[in-house]
Amino acid sequence: MNKVSDILAQNAFSLENINDLDKEISSLVQSRLNNVGPTTMLFYQEPLHIVRGEGIWLYDSKGKQYLDVYNNVASLGHCHPKVIDAVCNQMRSVNIHTRYLHETMHNYSEKLLKTMPESINRLVMTCTGTESNDLAMRLARNYTKNKGFIVSEAAYHGNSTAVTEASPSAYKKQQLPDYIITIPVAPIGIENDKIEDWFANNVSNAINTLDARGYGCAALLIDTIFSSDGIYSDPKGFIKKAVGIVKDRGGLFIADEVQPGFGRTGDSMWGFERHGVMPDIVTMGKPMGNGYPVSGLASRLDLLESMSEEAGYFNTFGGSTVAAAAALAVLETIQEEDLIAKTYTVGKYFKSGLLQLQAQYDCISEVRGTGLFLGAELSKDGDITRPDPERATAIMNALRQNGVLIGGAGKYASTLKIRPPLCFNKANADLFLSKLEDAIKVT
Amino acid sequence: MNKVSDILAQNAFSLENINDLDKEISSLVQSRLNNVGPTTMLFYQEPLHIVRGEGIWLYDSKGKQYLDVYNNVASLGHCHPKVIDAVCNQMRSVNIHTRYLHETMHNYSEKLLKTMPESINRLVMTCTGTESNDLAMRLARNYTKNKGFIVSEAAYHGNSTAVTEASPSAYKKQQLPDYIITIPVAPIGIENDKIEDWFANNVSNAINTLDARGYGCAALLIDTIFSSDGIYSDPKGFIKKAVGIVKDRGGLFIADEVQPGFGRTGDSMWGFERHGVMPDIVTMGKPMGNGYPVSGLASRLDLLESMSEEAGYFNTFGGSTVAAAAALAVLETIQEEDLIAKTYTVGKYFKSGLLQLQAQYDCISEVRGTGLFLGAELSKDGDITRPDPERATAIMNALRQNGVLIGGAGKYASTLKIRPPLCFNKANADLFLSKLEDAIKVT
Repeated sequence: MNKVSDILAQNAFSLENINDLDKEISSLVQSRLNNVGPTTMLFYQEPLHIVRGEGIWLYDSKGKQYLDVYNNVASLGHCHPKVIDAVCNQMRSVNIHTRYLHETMHNYSEKLLKTMPESINRLVMTCTGTESNDLAMRLARNYTKNKGFIVSEAAYHGNSTAVTEASPSAYKKQQLPDYIITIPVAPIGIENDKIEDWFANNVSNAINTLDARGYGCAALLIDTIFSSDGIYSDPKGFIKKAVGIVKDRGGLFIADEVQPGFGRTGDSMWGFERHGVMPDIVTMGKPMGNGYPVSGLASRLDLLESMSEEAGYFNTFGGSTVAAAAALAVLETIQEEDLIAKTYTVGKYFKSGLLQLQAQYDCISEVRGTGLFLGAELSKDGDITRPDPERATAIMNALRQNGVLIGGAGKYASTLKIRPPLCFNKANADLFLSKLEDAIKVT
Repeated sequence: MNKVSDILAQNAFSLENINDLDKEISSLVQSRLNNVGPTTMLFYQEPLHIVRGEGIWLYDSKGKQYLDVYNNVASLGHCHPKVIDAVCNQMRSVNIHTRYLHETMHNYSEKLLKTMPESINRLVMTCTGTESNDLAMRLARNYTKNKGFIVSEAAYHGNSTAVTEASPSAYKKQQLPDYIITIPVAPIGIENDKIEDWFANNVSNAINTLDARGYGCAALLIDTIFSSDGIYSDPKGFIKKAVGIVKDRGGLFIADEVQPGFGRTGDSMWGFERHGVMPDIVTMGKPMGNGYPVSGLASRLDLLESMSEEAGYFNTFGGSTVAAAAALAVLETIQEEDLIAKTYTVGKYFKSGLLQLQAQYDCISEVRGTGLFLGAELSKDGDITRPDPERATAIMNALRQNGVLIGGAGKYASTLKIRPPLCFNKANADLFLSKLEDAIKVT
């Protein structure tokens, strides 16, 4: 069985394949090996050299077209003109930080906070989701005076020292520190109406462990669609009881909306809303600027006040005039293009197509997810207790060769991660489903 | 005497002044208070509403012009057309992350590494200086298996959990953890030819303390112009012996080039070069994209390999096609506009003008720095042992009212931080000097 870390590695280019590449690609790979740090990886057995993007499409250097069913940063679609115009116009005026006044950042903050529960009443703009989650962990530790966090077993929340500790899927060899407790989120063998209790019980046990170790629970830190765990979205509300327990026992609930936020679930602007729960801190990232680096943390004022007595916080690029312009253009586009409702409709259609494939093909044991964040579980003989990461990898690479891009996820690297930009339509879904069927047949 | 944390607060707008503001500014301040987290601050007793920038100039909403002698992010000058064009053109083509191949990131990495010593042979692109320093700390801890760091006593290296611990100037109340040891860098009363030994001795004692506490020294982490300590650049080479001691005793040397890097010192591309020392890791930030969020970490390959056995590292925005295009445009502009040589010439001229003012006015006890990063120390009766932060603040605010922007620094918040974009010329220097003289007279 694969290690958790294989989630990240499953779709990686391996140097063993370098002799199979064409000249242009192999020369780019070589230049990368010579100059770029070895920590990051390339996607696919045959890495892609992408030179152009438009809406749902990406194009490689040979002009080959790819249906992008993976990238959630360009969430409005690649090269969205409204965001480009906002960024370029603001760059031509001035690009300065938040120690000067500028209206766009204020307007954006006000507009964004209106999409949140009333108690989440202040926004700190950061540059990356990592910085947002790192700050959230600082706020939680500072406020509760506890050190422990509860995260899902294949969670990924970012790349800083503190956030990596809370990201089991980033680890290859090291053990997690003993103040980070992981909980399972794949309810295998649990009946639907028992999942909420099962999840609450896992969280309750984790708090007991943190208390017994003398750390206490600073927060439950989760991405409410459990993206890297393999996409566990249902039943709606299944995290409710657990969140209540955490709060009763003095911890906070941090909703990491880097993945489910900004309308992706199709039900609501935020993933936590879909479950009817109330976070203390909401962190945001990737899709917030459609590619321009901008992220944020929304919080109860008292949490921020408590930290600001201890230490200052300043973020050079966070909330700059250009970052605010990009973020405002994204938020306005979500509203103007009615993207949440479209995501709901197209997502529902798309998921029913995947369920039909599941009915036809044994290799798919489960279809999960909501809106435009779907997962298809690959298992041997349709038995969900026997994950099939090799088949998942083969399908991903077959799709890539056939002009469709997806990624992988899950504790066993056996989940197809299906997560297109939100401009994805029913015709795109039909095309994907037919290409996926082809890939299933040839793998 | 002021606390270290007053460095950050010294130039801050205080709510006590809100009734003195004009209607537009006070309404912007109010909207900020209502929406934006209380952790960050606004500059100046009368905050600025900046709406336009061009080269060395910033303009407020009433059309008033300000000579910018503070902003080092827009290091080529505000709204540099080459960077804007590079960003906008790339945004119109495609903006994707580094798990796909793209030439600009490779070319940039190669070009940047050519400016480094041969042993610094790999580049990891990140999004912020904080992320670079956080990763540097991870690399150092992972490689040396030591936990301790040595930093200067008013250092600032960024805003993540780990990096804040190594940033004494960010703390208001909390104590530094006992695995972070601070060393003084202001050689008050030390003769010029004794400074290198004095500094080496401070570092050696710090290692002894870390060893005695069982942590060992992972690295000496310094900004070689000691920006937030009050700008200590001389004598050239004074950190050499200390760096040797750290390495002999198993620690690494991390050069944080967020402040001195990309030509600012006028002597060389990097601050560490000026001192003739060899880092193990070089971190970069602010000026790298002239305002577009892009940062980096250059390192010995073996350090990166060692970490990549333990954990993966991926940075969504770091090294994206647009980030690489911005960074490449900046690097090319530094070379095409011969900015290092210009910075040397203008900086020398500028410093000699400041030294003349020092000769005339008792309140300036010392002028420090190199290139276009200069500091003027404000003291009572010219006595450097009696810092005068109130006068420094008064001068900063008088300059701001009179159309010139600078900041403050130093352990006692008594240093004027004079750090314009590198397009600053001799006429700009003359204007600044005359305005500074006016400000001295009226404060």
